[in-house]
Amino acid sequence: MLSDLERLIQLMSRLPGLGPRSARRAVLELMKKRDGLMLPLADALRETAQKIETCRTCGNLDLSEVCKICTDEERDQTAICVVEEVSDLWAMERTRAFRGRYHVLGGHLSAIDGITPRHLNIEPLIDRAGEPQVEEIIMALGATVEGQTTNHYLSELLETKDVKVSRLALGLPVGGEVNYLDEGTLTTALRARR
Amino acid sequence: MLSDLERLIQLMSRLPGLGPRSARRAVLELMKKRDGLMLPLADALRETAQKIETCRTCGNLDLSEVCKICTDEERDQTAICVVEEVSDLWAMERTRAFRGRYHVLGGHLSAIDGITPRHLNIEPLIDRAGEPQVEEIIMALGATVEGQTTNHYLSELLETKDVKVSRLALGLPVGGEVNYLDEGTLTTALRARR
Repeated sequence: MLSDLERLIQLMSRLPGLGPRSARRAVLELMKKRDGLMLPLADALRETAQKIETCRTCGNLDLSEVCKICTDEERDQTAICVVEEVSDLWAMERTRAFRGRYHVLGGHLSAIDGITPRHLNIEPLIDRAGEPQVEEIIMALGATVEGQTTNHYLSELLETKDVKVSRLALGLPVGGEVNYLDEGTLTTALRARR
Repeated sequence: MLSDLERLIQLMSRLPGLGPRSARRAVLELMKKRDGLMLPLADALRETAQKIETCRTCGNLDLSEVCKICTDEERDQTAICVVEEVSDLWAMERTRAFRGRYHVLGGHLSAIDGITPRHLNIEPLIDRAGEPQVEEIIMALGATVEGQTTNHYLSELLETKDVKVSRLALGLPVGGEVNYLDEGTLTTALRARR
């Protein structure tokens, strides 16, 4: 309708989960709640954006140069959990089940997309795996062809280091009903029965 | 994870179409695209917010005190289309099928929600309907109980004015298959057959 508005709608529609239609609805909602939502959101975006740093150690996005997880001395220094993306790190953190540190690869190997080892944050991981306090590297990569290929590639590289390499179990998701599961998951769960 | 981030995620999750989970994903995406998306979005929000005005004539939200539609002399001055919300006005505009002006009520009458005529932008509509150039008032209210109650109420009020009052046709949505439609729509479409 208007160029300023169209530009805002277009930016909003680039967010995951919002298409052009829902972006328009969101903008309208923002305009109705100018002081309560639109201006606070603009400020929060700018303030947060100005503080974002990629952690030089693990690749996490945080609001300081070395991330809160890497600098937290309470955390287990013997284990490093390898994830594909920062979103995976956040997902692991939400479980509160892992108290060690992380390493974010920035993706997975993919022949189709032309992602080779040099595109990923791999060398620093090998260096970290060689640090004396590190005892275990936990692979928390996707249960996809690419994730498992990456898993395999990294595991081979890490064989030269004096660390245990483990990976997340594959099997039935909690709450999953057998008759709704795909054959791949069922076969894996059957083979890994205990 | 962090108070700044949590605040941003919480604000994002107040947008329609985004829940807490998708808001988190959106924020992460923004953080990854700091310069390309996050900062431009912050600026666009702030700039747009500072320009928003509610049109004193029709109730539309626009970036000037009297909206582009009301000030557009090319538009048909004889017809006013009455809508519940600004989003309805935008939807009508996207059809490009109506070239007159609008009147935004700001909702519909609702006994349950305690919305009475004095909560809606009704008096200015009656005034506008009395302007000499206005010949037709087109009701484009929802085909809901509340929308049609509002329709009826306004139509009675407008009987004192020298204008034609019409409303959007009810019937099959374009592309709608008969066997998927609810009985209410089908009955209405049957009765209004032509």
